[in-house]
Amino acid sequence: MAAETVTQANIGVVGMAVMGSNLARNLASREGNTVAIFNRSYEKTQTVLDEHPEAEFLPAKSYEEFAASLTKPRTAIIMVQAGKGTDAVIDALTGVFEPGDIIVDGGNALFTDTIRREKAVRETGINFVGAGISGGEEGALLGPSIMPGGSAEAWETLGPILKSIAAVAEGEPCVTHVGTDGAGHFVKMIHNGIEYADMQLIGEAYDLIRRGTGKTPAEIADIFAEWNKGELESYLIEITAEVLRQVDASTGTPLVDVIVDQAGSKGTGVWTVQTSLDLGIPVSGIAEAVFARSVSSKPAQRAAAADLPGPTASPVKDVDAFIEGVRQALYASKVIAYSQGFDAIVAGAEQYGWDIKKGDIAKIWRGGCIIRARFLNRITEAYAENPGLVSLVTAPFFTDVVATAQDSWRNVVADAAHAGIPAPVFSSSLAYYDSLRADRLPAALTQGQRDFFGAHTYKRIDKEGTFHTLWSGDRTEIEAADSH
Amino acid sequence: MAAETVTQANIGVVGMAVMGSNLARNLASREGNTVAIFNRSYEKTQTVLDEHPEAEFLPAKSYEEFAASLTKPRTAIIMVQAGKGTDAVIDALTGVFEPGDIIVDGGNALFTDTIRREKAVRETGINFVGAGISGGEEGALLGPSIMPGGSAEAWETLGPILKSIAAVAEGEPCVTHVGTDGAGHFVKMIHNGIEYADMQLIGEAYDLIRRGTGKTPAEIADIFAEWNKGELESYLIEITAEVLRQVDASTGTPLVDVIVDQAGSKGTGVWTVQTSLDLGIPVSGIAEAVFARSVSSKPAQRAAAADLPGPTASPVKDVDAFIEGVRQALYASKVIAYSQGFDAIVAGAEQYGWDIKKGDIAKIWRGGCIIRARFLNRITEAYAENPGLVSLVTAPFFTDVVATAQDSWRNVVADAAHAGIPAPVFSSSLAYYDSLRADRLPAALTQGQRDFFGAHTYKRIDKEGTFHTLWSGDRTEIEAADSH
Repeated sequence: MAAETVTQANIGVVGMAVMGSNLARNLASREGNTVAIFNRSYEKTQTVLDEHPEAEFLPAKSYEEFAASLTKPRTAIIMVQAGKGTDAVIDALTGVFEPGDIIVDGGNALFTDTIRREKAVRETGINFVGAGISGGEEGALLGPSIMPGGSAEAWETLGPILKSIAAVAEGEPCVTHVGTDGAGHFVKMIHNGIEYADMQLIGEAYDLIRRGTGKTPAEIADIFAEWNKGELESYLIEITAEVLRQVDASTGTPLVDVIVDQAGSKGTGVWTVQTSLDLGIPVSGIAEAVFARSVSSKPAQRAAAADLPGPTASPVKDVDAFIEGVRQALYASKVIAYSQGFDAIVAGAEQYGWDIKKGDIAKIWRGGCIIRARFLNRITEAYAENPGLVSLVTAPFFTDVVATAQDSWRNVVADAAHAGIPAPVFSSSLAYYDSLRADRLPAALTQGQRDFFGAHTYKRIDKEGTFHTLWSGDRTEIEAADSH
Repeated sequence: MAAETVTQANIGVVGMAVMGSNLARNLASREGNTVAIFNRSYEKTQTVLDEHPEAEFLPAKSYEEFAASLTKPRTAIIMVQAGKGTDAVIDALTGVFEPGDIIVDGGNALFTDTIRREKAVRETGINFVGAGISGGEEGALLGPSIMPGGSAEAWETLGPILKSIAAVAEGEPCVTHVGTDGAGHFVKMIHNGIEYADMQLIGEAYDLIRRGTGKTPAEIADIFAEWNKGELESYLIEITAEVLRQVDASTGTPLVDVIVDQAGSKGTGVWTVQTSLDLGIPVSGIAEAVFARSVSSKPAQRAAAADLPGPTASPVKDVDAFIEGVRQALYASKVIAYSQGFDAIVAGAEQYGWDIKKGDIAKIWRGGCIIRARFLNRITEAYAENPGLVSLVTAPFFTDVVATAQDSWRNVVADAAHAGIPAPVFSSSLAYYDSLRADRLPAALTQGQRDFFGAHTYKRIDKEGTFHTLWSGDRTEIEAADSH
């Protein structure tokens, strides 16, 4: 037996594009793993074998051969472009795998697709695990943050393997069993949504400083590098300094000035907002970030709007104070983005019956992934202290953050409005904050209007029941049987 | 033949709840119509007959009887709650109708359901028309704004009937053939989305004046009544004055103060945002309005957040100037909400192959519907002048509006931020406006970041192609085959 196991692999990877081959190399580099690899066209597999002989991969030319090369329970991670290709690979693998085996989808699948697939695959007795993997190509190779869903049974086999390749933050691997079926892809989707907000906030901070103070990209790079030493320390702040410092070789100007200012997006930002709308969760920061990218990608509209009137800009007087204000506004707005994102996780867990440990999610985001940041520890602590926390911003640590930041935050939003510099996520986050803490909201007027034109009825603050005013009659109030 | 036709109806209505019976009464009250009515339980039909003998309805106890009572091509409007009930009625009607007959769904169906249903029904040779009907119960009875989709063939028969019952604005009936299959329900959905933004803007204006100046609801009612004499003249401004003036009989306080400040929502606001996200259209004003309602409906979060720190409010100094500023901000923000809504219509028309006349849509919204307003004529004129208008706000009339309003708009957004009064749609609309007219957007930095962490590549402003900087290598730039 022992002589034979060396020709078998404990883990397989299907799909040898960059993400798949990097993940396979990462797996192969860890003690105890032997990795089987497969790609629809063998050519790509051969290239990977040629370029990485050190990995000692077990290549397969067919799904049958791939299945035969795996020890039981067979475990394979699919790394192909999300969509129909995923379904085709799942079909092929269920054809050659056996009950108890494990199929992992490591792509960016929509969580409802993952729920559907898990249900279908489960009927064959095979385990299906949707796993969100964050960190891009480099993360896949060196250690990503991994968010697996699926059954507890699958996690028993898969857990140690994923722990071997995940990023490590403060001694802990950045992977946890998020919940059943689609929970992993759901949390990965929210992660990406938060990433949209985080990136847009950084963009707004850069734009405000640049247009508000006239500082150069290189000077702003220094500011971000400085910020990265403090409470904003994070991967995105770090690479922002790198990008802003980059000089374009062909023109000698800052690279950021030669890049076309139209930001693309993949599905996850849009999915986060659409899903949160279904769940009734206001993720306004993420939504504004997605919209900011779509506005940028409308060159014809922007050209037509280029001459729309703006304000006469008055230069910032106290530059250092302004920059510190922007930093505070960025921090406070970031707290709101995470607060909204975690609200969506809580609502998703409730809707789909997942037992998601919020603190553990913040923990596995500390390393490997794009939004890794120092302050994630504070989120873990907040949920450890109060597992029933109803809103992240109401945890003492974060309340202190916004208490300290709020004057600056308000000034920055006001300054942006006066200066004509768009700051949609800064201002939306502040409006959300002020809505949340408002004693009374104009929603009461909205309900009055809806009752007026649609007899939608309203509730009263002073008694139970549902009421309707006879607006087109004598304007007395009647108790309604129920709303309609 | 002539003797027999008096016992037959030219139009039928299925569903005798309030909307259905009101629409049937509206139809019956117009010259030349005889109306067949049907309800799943005959009891409701009998009630309608008893209460409205003047309508001379032809009641039916079965679908067979209903079909027999209609002249050919048989034409029936379904007025049942959107969802599975609609499918059941369609199935029943297709069983008793014949090729060339017309089934109209007058409910608030999601346009993709309408596309699906139209395709299925078309195979039987029967015409299926999804028609958005706006105006609530009163509109259904006295004259709604009607947005029918479906085939040109169906419109030939249906057009005169719908014209007979639609609201009339400046001598023209508020109905037009919007486009094929789901076009009518799509436009109705966007109409409702704009309604969300419009209502939230009014709510923000009210809240700012109330909290900013301390004026009472009755005093603010006077302000809205005054506004309704000018360029803001509209149904929603008019009823806002009515609602704010209403005094609660049991407490003697303003009604708006006894209504629970949690606003509900039905599907269409959420659908508008979700659909616009799929289309890549930033409808930030509508999204913020939907989110504002969902924040309001989170009592546990609001209770936990009630003590979050806010600013020390400084009272408004020049009250009259502040109120006029809010009016200007409301007008400008409203222009943005419509501009975004029409962008969604344009994108939907392109995506689904509808030939939608934008100017005609603005025309049929002038009467009957909730967002009817004086300034819709200006939208019609803008599209008449320039059918290829890429953004409503760039039309000369609307550019003048924002040019006049922008100083006030900026002041109001800044004042709201300083005062801690949430104004999410005011501020989001301004940020959108400033994004649209920006010479450069920080999206260039976003693209740089995405290239850094995900090798997503970027375009350059000075040459064709797609590029990638070797960030973890020597940081030279390479030309990429394509983005990935």
